[in-house]
Amino acid sequence: MSSELYYADYLQLGRLLGAQRPESRRLGHEAHDEMLFIVVHQAYELWFRQILHELDAVLADFASERLDERSLAAICAKLERITRIQHLLVEQIGVLETMAPQDFLEFRDLLVPASGFQSVQFRVIETKLGLRVRDRPGGGTYVRRFSPGDRRLLEQLDHEPSLFDRVDAWLARMPFLQDDHYDFWSSYRDTLVQMFEADRAVLEQHSQLSDEERAQQLEQLQQSQQQFDCLFDATAYEKARTAGHVRLSRQAFQAALFIHLYRDEPLLQQPFRLLELLVEIDEQLTAWRYRHALMVQRMIGSRIGTGGSSGHQYLRQSAARTQIFGDLFNLASYLVPRSRLAPLPVGLSRKLDFHFSTLGNG
Amino acid sequence: MSSELYYADYLQLGRLLGAQRPESRRLGHEAHDEMLFIVVHQAYELWFRQILHELDAVLADFASERLDERSLAAICAKLERITRIQHLLVEQIGVLETMAPQDFLEFRDLLVPASGFQSVQFRVIETKLGLRVRDRPGGGTYVRRFSPGDRRLLEQLDHEPSLFDRVDAWLARMPFLQDDHYDFWSSYRDTLVQMFEADRAVLEQHSQLSDEERAQQLEQLQQSQQQFDCLFDATAYEKARTAGHVRLSRQAFQAALFIHLYRDEPLLQQPFRLLELLVEIDEQLTAWRYRHALMVQRMIGSRIGTGGSSGHQYLRQSAARTQIFGDLFNLASYLVPRSRLAPLPVGLSRKLDFHFSTLGNG
Amino acid sequence: MSSELYYADYLQLGRLLGAQRPESRRLGHEAHDEMLFIVVHQAYELWFRQILHELDAVLADFASERLDERSLAAICAKLERITRIQHLLVEQIGVLETMAPQDFLEFRDLLVPASGFQSVQFRVIETKLGLRVRDRPGGGTYVRRFSPGDRRLLEQLDHEPSLFDRVDAWLARMPFLQDDHYDFWSSYRDTLVQMFEADRAVLEQHSQLSDEERAQQLEQLQQSQQQFDCLFDATAYEKARTAGHVRLSRQAFQAALFIHLYRDEPLLQQPFRLLELLVEIDEQLTAWRYRHALMVQRMIGSRIGTGGSSGHQYLRQSAARTQIFGDLFNLASYLVPRSRLAPLPVGLSRKLDFHFSTLGNG
Amino acid sequence: MSSELYYADYLQLGRLLGAQRPESRRLGHEAHDEMLFIVVHQAYELWFRQILHELDAVLADFASERLDERSLAAICAKLERITRIQHLLVEQIGVLETMAPQDFLEFRDLLVPASGFQSVQFRVIETKLGLRVRDRPGGGTYVRRFSPGDRRLLEQLDHEPSLFDRVDAWLARMPFLQDDHYDFWSSYRDTLVQMFEADRAVLEQHSQLSDEERAQQLEQLQQSQQQFDCLFDATAYEKARTAGHVRLSRQAFQAALFIHLYRDEPLLQQPFRLLELLVEIDEQLTAWRYRHALMVQRMIGSRIGTGGSSGHQYLRQSAARTQIFGDLFNLASYLVPRSRLAPLPVGLSRKLDFHFSTLGNG
Repeated sequence: MSSELYYADYLQLGRLLGAQRPESRRLGHEAHDEMLFIVVHQAYELWFRQILHELDAVLADFASERLDERSLAAICAKLERITRIQHLLVEQIGVLETMAPQDFLEFRDLLVPASGFQSVQFRVIETKLGLRVRDRPGGGTYVRRFSPGDRRLLEQLDHEPSLFDRVDAWLARMPFLQDDHYDFWSSYRDTLVQMFEADRAVLEQHSQLSDEERAQQLEQLQQSQQQFDCLFDATAYEKARTAGHVRLSRQAFQAALFIHLYRDEPLLQQPFRLLELLVEIDEQLTAWRYRHALMVQRMIGSRIGTGGSSGHQYLRQSAARTQIFGDLFNLASYLVPRSRLAPLPVGLSRKLDFHFSTLGNG
Repeated sequence: MSSELYYADYLQLGRLLGAQRPESRRLGHEAHDEMLFIVVHQAYELWFRQILHELDAVLADFASERLDERSLAAICAKLERITRIQHLLVEQIGVLETMAPQDFLEFRDLLVPASGFQSVQFRVIETKLGLRVRDRPGGGTYVRRFSPGDRRLLEQLDHEPSLFDRVDAWLARMPFLQDDHYDFWSSYRDTLVQMFEADRAVLEQHSQLSDEERAQQLEQLQQSQQQFDCLFDATAYEKARTAGHVRLSRQAFQAALFIHLYRDEPLLQQPFRLLELLVEIDEQLTAWRYRHALMVQRMIGSRIGTGGSSGHQYLRQSAARTQIFGDLFNLASYLVPRSRLAPLPVGLSRKLDFHFSTLGNG
Repeated sequence: MSSELYYADYLQLGRLLGAQRPESRRLGHEAHDEMLFIVVHQAYELWFRQILHELDAVLADFASERLDERSLAAICAKLERITRIQHLLVEQIGVLETMAPQDFLEFRDLLVPASGFQSVQFRVIETKLGLRVRDRPGGGTYVRRFSPGDRRLLEQLDHEPSLFDRVDAWLARMPFLQDDHYDFWSSYRDTLVQMFEADRAVLEQHSQLSDEERAQQLEQLQQSQQQFDCLFDATAYEKARTAGHVRLSRQAFQAALFIHLYRDEPLLQQPFRLLELLVEIDEQLTAWRYRHALMVQRMIGSRIGTGGSSGHQYLRQSAARTQIFGDLFNLASYLVPRSRLAPLPVGLSRKLDFHFSTLGNG
Repeated sequence: MSSELYYADYLQLGRLLGAQRPESRRLGHEAHDEMLFIVVHQAYELWFRQILHELDAVLADFASERLDERSLAAICAKLERITRIQHLLVEQIGVLETMAPQDFLEFRDLLVPASGFQSVQFRVIETKLGLRVRDRPGGGTYVRRFSPGDRRLLEQLDHEPSLFDRVDAWLARMPFLQDDHYDFWSSYRDTLVQMFEADRAVLEQHSQLSDEERAQQLEQLQQSQQQFDCLFDATAYEKARTAGHVRLSRQAFQAALFIHLYRDEPLLQQPFRLLELLVEIDEQLTAWRYRHALMVQRMIGSRIGTGGSSGHQYLRQSAARTQIFGDLFNLASYLVPRSRLAPLPVGLSRKLDFHFSTLGNG
């Protein structure tokens, strides 16, 4: 049969193109723009499916006890593909916005109480990335608006290891940070202390600041420094983690820092790219939520959403609260310029290089 | 029922998300990237469906004997939506290109002889816009690779009025260009003659050109001028049209020029936007084809396509030959700067204004 | 001279390409990525210049007592161009994000206390669009970080009519809403009341809501309705306006609603497009701010910005507070479906049509 | 001084924002859209400057006799940045297209004979990437339209090693392809032969092809196979290279194939990414040229360009002829699916792995 495969059969176009069923048409007064509304959401769901396909493959790779360095490039390629898809998802909002608010009104009430809120695939993506039920606006009550089957799925997923968990464990397992001859942590600490002192000096000499502003910012610096001290104090770190100020385990946080600081070492090149891609995915997700909230405001003003949600304000708050890899964003606070960075000991540097190069150079 | 509409049912997600059936999975050795290949093409087909939804609505509006000015803004909004979707279609190519050529190889042979060439919806879009079978590379033989049903559909559509035909007729019907007191055509001719003389002078004085270049370009100018003389000679124009150098009817071409030149007149504002949007749609379609050809070269090199076509070279030639509204692009050759343009007579200008303004100003 | 104009002279490339002066190079240890930092910001400033060029032209058109309908298409074309540029500005953030946080560190401290906060052109764009000093986070203190000359410019501009003011006045002047035979306001009121009752019914019957959610949302609906009642009560409206819940004058708000509801009338087609474009500009500006805030977090974590600001949190709050045409977004709350809308009286409809059509139909 | 660095001074805004000098303004009848024309081209030149900054850094890295594996990630990051900038360049065309052809006419003649053709930076980018004078449409005559200084620069650059040359040499130097125990070339040859036989079988059994089509495509396959035989015959390869059918040296071509086929080996991960990025840069450049050609047609129709060129047809041909890394595109022709690929011998695989992993696994 494959020898006469036909494009339309291969893509199941009969199903695909028969799946647009405007409510307004069913009720006998078709609203032209309902087709757009359906197609845009279906395109979203197709892309969500693809994102899940990539995410599941990446999770499977991470589930193995010892992640093979050979597979890192392929993992990064999958994550990069997700970011490219996310870019499309943001662009799609602009397509939906070609629908005027009044044209949405023609069929909007017919959709109640269905709502984009109920996109299970989107919730699964969030959950698999690492957004936990307890971090969502509304907490556990958010699952109430799903069908019983979908609810079960979402609640169950909440207990499975997410990409956040897998990356945390993978980072925490990373060797190299300490051996008989080297302790990354103490060599780094000295450098970092100097950095904070420099920042404090900048603030204190800053002529354009009012006393009030200076006081406020010194206060913030103080807080940063305390958070920083946490890194070196296991008990304090766990306290901060319990309080939700940081989410990665301490070992993972240290490894992420190490990767950022020594990212040119051959063995760290792909791990660095991996961390960057996680940040990119998180950023695009947040940006999408925000643009989506603006679009909702534009479409329905300050009225309630079709699903009964309070609309754009809910969505905007939600955008702010759902950063998953926030620690990787905030990592930038702890970096030090290369020029000040202590070089790695030769033995460690050799471990992080290729067998071929090591031989070639040795 | 509608009172308890559920998102997944409304969007027919069961069908939609059950329609991805990789051949490689069916044959027991799933290739990871086949899912991407399928989803990208399905997303294309969803958007094609939406483009057709808009195109059909626009064609229906144009099918009425007398197009109501009230509906022009809505027509333009639909065409603009198409351009926004086309922008997505170009971006999608970049997503497919995240698949490495070797990954495509893992399942490519399983798809033979199916091919994107066989996208009926894409062919219908082309045809409804105005691409005729006889203008396609390969001519009438191109339908041979479709199923009998699809072939019948495509052949039948070829005889129905396309958007090109409708716009041509609408333009040709436009009044205003001539009355007892005014003849756009003769007032315009004088101005235009002066323009060509100026261009000729530029070339003759152009110090950096070699004699050969100058001769070649004067030859081109001569050709342009002959094409231009055509406009004023009905017989010559028909001859050029038969030869395929121009496609719009002479009256339509004149009206399109008139709209471009006097586009600020209130009644001509939306018609001008309409012409611009047709050019934009055509340009995006051509750009998409070209990018698509490059992507195919990247994916399969100079090998034959899955459908047996000779691949990217075929596609590139095809991109060049399928401009539909080429006359509207070339229109720019015939424009004159506003400063040199004869103003419209007061009576005509009033006709093109709003009733309200006319009263208000009168 | 113009006869031998050279590309590099015309574009002043000597100046343009001599204007990149990395501090790190001046200090003898050039950081590779400082060039990117400079070029991205210079590209921003070039585009800001272009946006101001368009904005100034639009403001000049609006400054005339009676805005000619002939010029509306040209105004819309300028605003649409601004939105296209804004789209680039958002894309540019992604280019800057190719700089890793650690690479920024190499030169970041050299820039203190300079900061993107000090982009005068950006502040002028905001101000000319209608963002007032008193609505900015930090209020009047925000000008303190500019040079004396820039500060004077910004403070002076704050007192000049902005695009918001001009559009408000233009809308408020709009005739048509009332004459001897027609009162838009009362015909609209009846329809609207019915809408709110329908929404209330939806909420009360909504089986998936908890009692708490339902109470909360009925409360919100109550608030919406009170805001809506404001429209019909001049005193209450002024009170809401003073409190900052609404910014447009009451007449302007009514006219904007009228335009939305009857946007197919030929005379209202361009005004509707104008309102849509203002919303688009505002949305893009807000989206840009938000993306920018995320980028800053990614680049500097939770540390203080080079200008002494507290970084990304400040910027995110700022994104939320700077909507200028929020009333036009919220307008969607007050729309009614076309099917329920009372048709315009024939006399008014004729006024809004073209002279030509009116004659043709009459 | 740095302690009080001001944003406007740092970015040299005085120069930058004083560099827009419309000819139409100088001549006393300012055309509104000339500012856009200038700003768009200046933005292009700024980005070209940035691209050159990255390209020069990459060329410097490649100029060292032995390219350190440590620097490959940084090289890829620079190339990826170039692709991000190129994406902006394509988007910018859409911004320029908001200018209507007639608005361009208002100042177009004032620019003669200046032309975008004369962008030296663009020519330098092309040349540094590897486009040689002799491969340009028009060949060596193309430099005649530059100023004497620019001409000298371009002619000189034509003799310096380009990125193409550097990458060719780097690939040709690559070890691994042969040692006492392994010969990539012969192991690969066997597999490849089988592939071509499969393709031939597909064509011969292809029921939907006419005899004519089949003959034509078998002919093409024959040609492909001859080109393929070239790979294994040094004399034939050089002949094909002299004839311009292939540009990479034979050793480089082999190494590129090896990298594609075994891209998961840790040491080959970044080289593979490098090859992909070169293809991406080339593709974007070609796509930009094509879009640019369409834009020119839209702006000036079939008239001569301001620089005396024959306009869009010239540009379109030019787009087709200027592929630099075409061999890397065509490489896809020579790939074989992983499933059929002979695994690397253990010793070689170990060389391509990290020292750490090798120890860990050994």
